[in-house]
Amino acid sequence: MAPSIVVRDVLDREAVRRSVDTALADFLAAKARTATSQPQLGYLSGLLQDFMAGGKRIRPLLCATGWYAVGGGEDPRSVFQVAACLEMFHAFALIHDDVMDNSDTRRGRPTVHRTLAEHSAGRRGEEELERFAHSAAVLLGDLALTWSDELLHEAGLTPVQLGAVLPLLNEMRTELMVGQFLDLDATGGLTDDIEATLNVNRYKTAKYTIERPLHIGAAIAGAGAEAMAAFTAFALPLGEAFQLRDDLLGIYGDPGTTGKSRLDDLRAGKNTTLTALALRGADAAQTARLRSSLGNPLLDERGAADVREIFEATGARATVERMIDERHRQALAALEDSPFPFAPDALAALEEIAHLATVRNS
Amino acid sequence: MAPSIVVRDVLDREAVRRSVDTALADFLAAKARTATSQPQLGYLSGLLQDFMAGGKRIRPLLCATGWYAVGGGEDPRSVFQVAACLEMFHAFALIHDDVMDNSDTRRGRPTVHRTLAEHSAGRRGEEELERFAHSAAVLLGDLALTWSDELLHEAGLTPVQLGAVLPLLNEMRTELMVGQFLDLDATGGLTDDIEATLNVNRYKTAKYTIERPLHIGAAIAGAGAEAMAAFTAFALPLGEAFQLRDDLLGIYGDPGTTGKSRLDDLRAGKNTTLTALALRGADAAQTARLRSSLGNPLLDERGAADVREIFEATGARATVERMIDERHRQALAALEDSPFPFAPDALAALEEIAHLATVRNS
Repeated sequence: MAPSIVVRDVLDREAVRRSVDTALADFLAAKARTATSQPQLGYLSGLLQDFMAGGKRIRPLLCATGWYAVGGGEDPRSVFQVAACLEMFHAFALIHDDVMDNSDTRRGRPTVHRTLAEHSAGRRGEEELERFAHSAAVLLGDLALTWSDELLHEAGLTPVQLGAVLPLLNEMRTELMVGQFLDLDATGGLTDDIEATLNVNRYKTAKYTIERPLHIGAAIAGAGAEAMAAFTAFALPLGEAFQLRDDLLGIYGDPGTTGKSRLDDLRAGKNTTLTALALRGADAAQTARLRSSLGNPLLDERGAADVREIFEATGARATVERMIDERHRQALAALEDSPFPFAPDALAALEEIAHLATVRNS
Repeated sequence: MAPSIVVRDVLDREAVRRSVDTALADFLAAKARTATSQPQLGYLSGLLQDFMAGGKRIRPLLCATGWYAVGGGEDPRSVFQVAACLEMFHAFALIHDDVMDNSDTRRGRPTVHRTLAEHSAGRRGEEELERFAHSAAVLLGDLALTWSDELLHEAGLTPVQLGAVLPLLNEMRTELMVGQFLDLDATGGLTDDIEATLNVNRYKTAKYTIERPLHIGAAIAGAGAEAMAAFTAFALPLGEAFQLRDDLLGIYGDPGTTGKSRLDDLRAGKNTTLTALALRGADAAQTARLRSSLGNPLLDERGAADVREIFEATGARATVERMIDERHRQALAALEDSPFPFAPDALAALEEIAHLATVRNS
């Protein structure tokens, strides 16, 4: 990594992105170079490099901020390498998620299994092609999960740092997978159980996206229980707000900005707090319309407009906006009331992250 | 783990199985106990426990033998824990493999995605059920991969031991995935390229099943380059023989003993050295019969009998038997010529493993 990295860079979003992307690109290029006897490795690492190009790098930013906010240290290189590990793990999670949801686009581009199908089209019949593409995408996800570990192993952490990071990383991974299982288990049957949707949200997003990256960065800097608790108090409401915003963007966002179709979540019958609120507030006729549209793989733009109208009419959309606001405020209040004395620049960085996570259009 | 473990146990197959199974059961029980806020963890760890019940524990045995053969140490507990890590990783590999092949049975019992489908039947339509079962099985495999790491982290290795083991484990995981990709990429089009089938075999089996477990066990005991090279010279021919025997068992084995259908490999159009040899040796009429049968998902027992007849008539089956013998002898010769001075009891254990791997009916 370039020697020009300075500690203050960890609060600069573009600098974090550059450092993490350099770590990822170096790692993947090294994998492609070992491909002399395994030319497929070059192809697979190239696929991964392309897939990762479009991310927001929010987990790396949180990891770097967590490190800085508890005192950090003189050399942020290890924390950028661990942040790259989190981003590689996230690539794994997204690739498998897209296979499970059978999504066609991600970040405005074809998903990995779509790309694999394109590369292999003509060589296989349609059914065979679909199976190959899904299987190879699962495999590329497995590789990303394995390689995320290697990035950690190469991060140059001391045994003490590694001992602090590993249990958190393990927790994070199991939490995400349990959240994903809850999500899968709920998909296919619509629910008006708002608490159940918030529970999935907590595991799949709040802990995974916000809390654990902060904790892991802080653990590298040797943070104690007080700082960890302060991060949790900030992260859980913020993470919930982040996912609630994501739910809204999946329905109302501009596909040109979000990179995602506005039909996918509706067609998949994804249970969100928004859909649970709508079902809770719907009259008999609205309930019938929701039940015939949500989870209908053939839903078109007109049907989606009808669903959006019910989300407005039942007040579900407005309630979700209010829940985002409340949680955003709770997160800021947690910073203000933190028993751990965050420095002013760290506080400002955390407040900016809270703003970015809740008030965004992509 | 029970304090009654003694060093000599590592060469006793039943003792290795007991120790590794205890480590796995303790680990999974602990996961189920943390399930107070995540009851799904209890269900998922139970699924994994059931799935792992039937394995042969060949990788743990090799890991333990590798450790012992280079001098081992006074306490084999760490090596059993690392062996448990390899077995958990193998559970991941099999679960994902079964999803990719859409296999219904494994070890004489329903595969994980079949079990998940059974548990969820009635709650979903057929297509939805299939998708849920495949997705949840991918997720359970992901959990097994993650948990295999945790078993390693908890193995009580010194930093020096961990530093020796990790690069080998990383290599092993990437090699398996590349082998699996090669295999996927080749499936769907039949090949008479014998070298190509042996190349998949080398990555997917010889290195993964035999060489790396020996290396990893040996690394815990601080083995040097000479011992590692001796294991490689033994393991690669033996691993190829192991896979060639597996290919034969998939076609000719007794399903009551192997726990696998004798139709699955044929229906999937799996490219093996056996099928490549048959295609190479077939006349025009036989080639046409092979091409209409291999990869035909509706192939019945009669069609399978016809394929077996061609395997005999072309001499493919006899050639594979001869290749197994040759490789078995090469492996034994490598032990005899080893520049590393293995002790007599270690040599005897390695020879017994070579026998078990090549002359078996399950």
